[in-house]
Amino acid sequence: KVKLSEELWSETCWEIGESRFDPDQAITAGSNFMIGNGYMGYRGTFADDRAGQYPALVVTDTYDNADGTWKELVTAPNGLFTTISCQGKDILWRQGGFREYERRLAMRWGEWSARAQWDTPGILVEEERFCSYDDLHLLTSRTRITALGEVALEITTGIDGTVWSLNGDHFSSLSLEEGPDCLEASCVTGEQGYHLVLREDARLRSGPEGEIEPCRRTALDGTLCRVFQVSLREGQEVVLEKRVVLYSSNDLRDTTKITSDAARGPLPSLAEVRQAVAAGLSRAVARDWNLLREAHRRVWQERWASADIMIGGDPVAQTLIRYNLYHNVIAAPAHADHLPLGARGLSCQAYQGAAFWDQEVFNLPMFLFTEPETARRLLVYRYRTLDGARKKARDLGYRGAFYAWVSGDTGEEICPSYFFRDVLSGRRIRNHFNDWQIHVSPDIAYTVWKYVAATGDQEFLYRYGAEILFEVARFLASRVHYRPGLERYEIIRVLGPDEYHENVDNNYFTNFQAQFVCRYAVETYDTLAEEHPQTVRGLEERIGLEKSERDAWDDIARRIYIPAPDSETGLIEQFQGFFELEDTRPEVIKKRLLDPGEYWGWPNGIAVETQVSKQADVTQLFMLHPQACSREVMKANWEYYEPRTQHGSSLSYAVYAICAAWIGHGEEAYRYFLRSCTVDLLNTGKAVSGGTFIGGIHTAACGVAWQIVVSGFAGMYLTRDGFGFAPHLPPEWESLSFRLKRWGGTLEITLHRRAMTVKALPENPRDIQITLGSAEVSVAPGGQVALPLEG
Amino acid sequence: KVKLSEELWSETCWEIGESRFDPDQAITAGSNFMIGNGYMGYRGTFADDRAGQYPALVVTDTYDNADGTWKELVTAPNGLFTTISCQGKDILWRQGGFREYERRLAMRWGEWSARAQWDTPGILVEEERFCSYDDLHLLTSRTRITALGEVALEITTGIDGTVWSLNGDHFSSLSLEEGPDCLEASCVTGEQGYHLVLREDARLRSGPEGEIEPCRRTALDGTLCRVFQVSLREGQEVVLEKRVVLYSSNDLRDTTKITSDAARGPLPSLAEVRQAVAAGLSRAVARDWNLLREAHRRVWQERWASADIMIGGDPVAQTLIRYNLYHNVIAAPAHADHLPLGARGLSCQAYQGAAFWDQEVFNLPMFLFTEPETARRLLVYRYRTLDGARKKARDLGYRGAFYAWVSGDTGEEICPSYFFRDVLSGRRIRNHFNDWQIHVSPDIAYTVWKYVAATGDQEFLYRYGAEILFEVARFLASRVHYRPGLERYEIIRVLGPDEYHENVDNNYFTNFQAQFVCRYAVETYDTLAEEHPQTVRGLEERIGLEKSERDAWDDIARRIYIPAPDSETGLIEQFQGFFELEDTRPEVIKKRLLDPGEYWGWPNGIAVETQVSKQADVTQLFMLHPQACSREVMKANWEYYEPRTQHGSSLSYAVYAICAAWIGHGEEAYRYFLRSCTVDLLNTGKAVSGGTFIGGIHTAACGVAWQIVVSGFAGMYLTRDGFGFAPHLPPEWESLSFRLKRWGGTLEITLHRRAMTVKALPENPRDIQITLGSAEVSVAPGGQVALPLEG
Ligand SMILES: [Ca+2]
Ligand SMILES: [Ca+2]
Repeated sequence: KVKLSEELWSETCWEIGESRFDPDQAITAGSNFMIGNGYMGYRGTFADDRAGQYPALVVTDTYDNADGTWKELVTAPNGLFTTISCQGKDILWRQGGFREYERRLAMRWGEWSARAQWDTPGILVEEERFCSYDDLHLLTSRTRITALGEVALEITTGIDGTVWSLNGDHFSSLSLEEGPDCLEASCVTGEQGYHLVLREDARLRSGPEGEIEPCRRTALDGTLCRVFQVSLREGQEVVLEKRVVLYSSNDLRDTTKITSDAARGPLPSLAEVRQAVAAGLSRAVARDWNLLREAHRRVWQERWASADIMIGGDPVAQTLIRYNLYHNVIAAPAHADHLPLGARGLSCQAYQGAAFWDQEVFNLPMFLFTEPETARRLLVYRYRTLDGARKKARDLGYRGAFYAWVSGDTGEEICPSYFFRDVLSGRRIRNHFNDWQIHVSPDIAYTVWKYVAATGDQEFLYRYGAEILFEVARFLASRVHYRPGLERYEIIRVLGPDEYHENVDNNYFTNFQAQFVCRYAVETYDTLAEEHPQTVRGLEERIGLEKSERDAWDDIARRIYIPAPDSETGLIEQFQGFFELEDTRPEVIKKRLLDPGEYWGWPNGIAVETQVSKQADVTQLFMLHPQACSREVMKANWEYYEPRTQHGSSLSYAVYAICAAWIGHGEEAYRYFLRSCTVDLLNTGKAVSGGTFIGGIHTAACGVAWQIVVSGFAGMYLTRDGFGFAPHLPPEWESLSFRLKRWGGTLEITLHRRAMTVKALPENPRDIQITLGSAEVSVAPGGQVALPLEG
Repeated sequence: KVKLSEELWSETCWEIGESRFDPDQAITAGSNFMIGNGYMGYRGTFADDRAGQYPALVVTDTYDNADGTWKELVTAPNGLFTTISCQGKDILWRQGGFREYERRLAMRWGEWSARAQWDTPGILVEEERFCSYDDLHLLTSRTRITALGEVALEITTGIDGTVWSLNGDHFSSLSLEEGPDCLEASCVTGEQGYHLVLREDARLRSGPEGEIEPCRRTALDGTLCRVFQVSLREGQEVVLEKRVVLYSSNDLRDTTKITSDAARGPLPSLAEVRQAVAAGLSRAVARDWNLLREAHRRVWQERWASADIMIGGDPVAQTLIRYNLYHNVIAAPAHADHLPLGARGLSCQAYQGAAFWDQEVFNLPMFLFTEPETARRLLVYRYRTLDGARKKARDLGYRGAFYAWVSGDTGEEICPSYFFRDVLSGRRIRNHFNDWQIHVSPDIAYTVWKYVAATGDQEFLYRYGAEILFEVARFLASRVHYRPGLERYEIIRVLGPDEYHENVDNNYFTNFQAQFVCRYAVETYDTLAEEHPQTVRGLEERIGLEKSERDAWDDIARRIYIPAPDSETGLIEQFQGFFELEDTRPEVIKKRLLDPGEYWGWPNGIAVETQVSKQADVTQLFMLHPQACSREVMKANWEYYEPRTQHGSSLSYAVYAICAAWIGHGEEAYRYFLRSCTVDLLNTGKAVSGGTFIGGIHTAACGVAWQIVVSGFAGMYLTRDGFGFAPHLPPEWESLSFRLKRWGGTLEITLHRRAMTVKALPENPRDIQITLGSAEVSVAPGGQVALPLEG
């Protein structure tokens, strides 16, 4: 059983915290305790931390390439920067030396707090901060300093412009200046020429009235600050409030056309950006800090009302699930429909702030059933980036939409061709994530299906979904190969989800997804032609859609090769020839490493010629298509592939957890659930490897936690008229409760050990049918049913 | 200009020789001076050499796997082993220290000779030897020892059983015994259990009558010898004659069914093999040594009558061409139609004694026009190994015949999956010569076409050729992929001739050959159906041939993608995406090597992501299909690819030489001709690398020398009714003369600077038409024509 430090959860199960400070965990803790609002992320570091402690204010929609290789989000100057000196001596969090330390993240409110007490000189410092969900451009903190004896304080606060940046310095210019009643950082990115303006307002008060004036400005070591000097007697306190507002050029640009940077029209002037910042800061300064927080908390309250999962009898699991849902929420650009949900969210620049297939398969389903408008926006993002996907297809000799493996603002491929090095020779390795890992395209089209099925949002289908779908089907039609002798279509030279094996053929996952999408494209075409012909006509005009294409997709759907389960063993081959590879185990081949830093995969890594997989692959398909095969076949495959899987990707545990729940491997399901939910929280591995930062929040693991609980343990599945359930709760759990949205309505599901109750909100627009075993009941708006569970 | 040591050629241009002994060149000289007869090869080492000097008696049809990886021919015990001691001191060739040394190879007669004179004690030793073409199982030598003062000699001669073997000890048992009037080595191979029996007869005479009896036997250090003691006065001499006869089990087995070892029926008993050896030795002993040689020479005389090329005015080129033709001849198992011509012939075990595509494309054409029965036998070998090729296709999921990349006796693939190591990590590399380098199959079918076209041998086509052709076409039909969107067939994931680039698509060479073969298969099918329906019926029964297959081949031939020359530059892309690779040069990337021993190719070598090719590829296609494109396009491509080609394969120079002649790059043609012809002769590179023997005769370079001269410089090409010529003689050459066979008739072609004469032998069965520029003349049997050449 996973050991979770007691400090990591509180009685309320709404917080994580630590009361022991470990400077070696700076990276992990900075990620775990981060705050954010989908527009910006601010790492859970301390106010006086410098670049060496990896603080970061990561801002969305600022993709820029500084080093010629990595296009990534930029980190803004740190507007919360503050240092305290007391009796002439610097009090630095990062140096520890305090008594009664604690750092907390209140998931319920998206608020970070820390407190510590220093003995000599005696002061107590308490800080709280949040990225506002009421005004996404606002980052604010409040720090209370209480004297435990007579002390002379010097508080230096302002902006730290010495930005920590992963891959090069993104700013061709960065100036720190005094603004009107504030300090200002004004930056221009080197590649794209975006402006980024950040203004900071700081006020120090002793008591409700006594505002203290700063005694001077200081500009040391890349910072611009004001200095407050104040003497306190024992028990006296001062409170520092900081309000930081920031905008980038892109925040003022048209967001409906982001097919390329040029398509968004000209960049606004610096004056325009500055004006937006000034207005934002005036609004924030005009409001009491508590009211700012109130407005922010109201948004969180709303979100948790739909998103929260309540687990009775297992406080660790309860805390973990909230921690994971929290991080999925703050990573999501729910305010926009032109931005991706990054694989590391806004926790740092790693993974370029960009979307992978993770977005649709791991992050999105939680939103689909709790906040469908966010799921919709993430899919509209895929619509807005269709031109990038079309360009990639064209560049590689295909048609339609070949979505980027790494997708930023324009949807053009920003995954470099070289990103690993052979540590033995120092030579770079050509990995083919950017041209062979094609399943991202059908994965997105599959999610269009799922979204439309769950929400009934036909308008989305007409305006966006159909075009995505048909362009993906078109891509697949240009990508498949027909084998005349075998009279079947094949998909050659791909990477499946298991990324150690590149250059494989007829990957079960990829072929199945391709078939599903071609079939769905044909059905959709036929339905639209019948029921909404103007959509078809529009696509004929806009993308040159032809009826013959529909027929080609139909032929592919009928004749594409789908590896079948072996009639005796039930095993499905991950890809052609997989079973002929050396049959061994991750722990065995690990001993073959000549250097612990060696890459295990293509082309020469230790896993390549073996059946050791990086992550779930056949099992991954089951997660998306629980009905793809019988439970017996699923079980056989789970049991075969599980010991051969390294879980070298954070995506893997969840998949094994979900399928384990389905096939009755309850203990394994719970074990994998815990592993998946603690990928970041218990991360004791290196966060910097060979000088490269590899930390940050694994947002896919966070998002998929919802699926483990709801799809896995509760066994929820979509039916035509509602939801089905096949619960397999861990024995630890006394109850499980969550909400599900469908067709604009909301259900509240509660599972006890012996019964399931389903409550429909009164405002639901229609009845929703519930299937449980052989029972089928309809729940009317405002209604409630209770169904017995088999022991 | 290539510098060729004066010693390497004699006035007659029929010999190579050396008068300086360099023990460091033991491997190269051992290969260059080797003798052989297509049944056995005996390296040009010295009689007293031990394993450290790499002597070897390599015997065909003895494929055996000793180390679990390499199936290769075995090396037999050395029956010519002899040491001389004089005045109690060992006289060893390998230690040098002689005066008046020379070693010679008489290409005219396939005879090796050496002589050396030692001062103290003074003796002159002269040895000559040959592998008999009159009795292929006979290896014989004669050594004359002349006293230059008064000397007491001890001559120890017999069999050295300490065999040098490349990849493991092939003999599970090896016994050296005294036989009836001879010594005998009797061996059993470990994997296959083949017997190999070798008997040696040695006689020492002083003068014609005075046979000297040995004084004792000795069995030291893995040898079994008899010892002669003799004292000579100044000017006196003794002569040692040795006759060695050997047979292996396979020499007595059925050779018409070698589809698998089992198909050849049971192994003969040791007694049977011994009986064959005994009979052979009796015959040899019964004949005077001079008569043995006479019989042997008669065969050579015959062969040279058809094979010789005479070059006037350039003795170096004259010697070189004969040296190369010689090695192609002795490598060819002209006595059999179930054996391959090895890539290193019988010069050593390297390349497993096995055939590559080299056999058809490089070795065979010389025979096709000078000794067509040998060409036929090599193709019948491909027929007899069809089951191996069918098995390979089946094992890899295809139909028809996928010929082995490395083809031994049964035609099953004996190319290991791993044969290179990454010198930086010590890890083995998975190269895909054995499963992706598919062009060998169409290359063989193409050669069926060429053979039938040149000889008119319809009987071959009915019995063997059609089945090869259809099985290859069937394989191709199962190997191609159809791209529905592009409405074309493609060939995906291959290695073309340039082996540094694996995993490429639509390799021009491969696709062109595949199209040619499909087209030829359709034509052949149609012609046979019309003119020889019993062949079609036979194939319907035997291999389940169907008319629908013919239609599928037709469709492939019509719609396979053949990269076209760029309309502006004329360039043809070697494979899809080649021109997007880094455009650099071999000498540039060579500097990127971290270790001189690194493999340049797939998957991680320095050439992989560049346009640097190992060897001719687009140009290689031109060599096979001179009419594939215009001379301008050929020129553009030659000039583009030539500086990007490393010539890391011995096959490359010749291709560039031939095409250079065609496009008017005369100097380059001559330069590449010399480089190609001296691959072995001037080999100054390492012959042992990392403990691995990489020496041996490059038989493909030897065989293709004929093509450089006849197809390249003389510009010979096949026409429907005879031959065409487009001569481009090097300016050094005053004349060029050679014979060509077609339809059973022979022409003697002589080119002077101003005229070409063509003489038809009186026994020719029909007229042969000659095309020269716009001139067309018919040469009747016994006739002669002279045609003027344009200056
Ligand atoms: Ca990944
Ligand atoms: Ca080769």
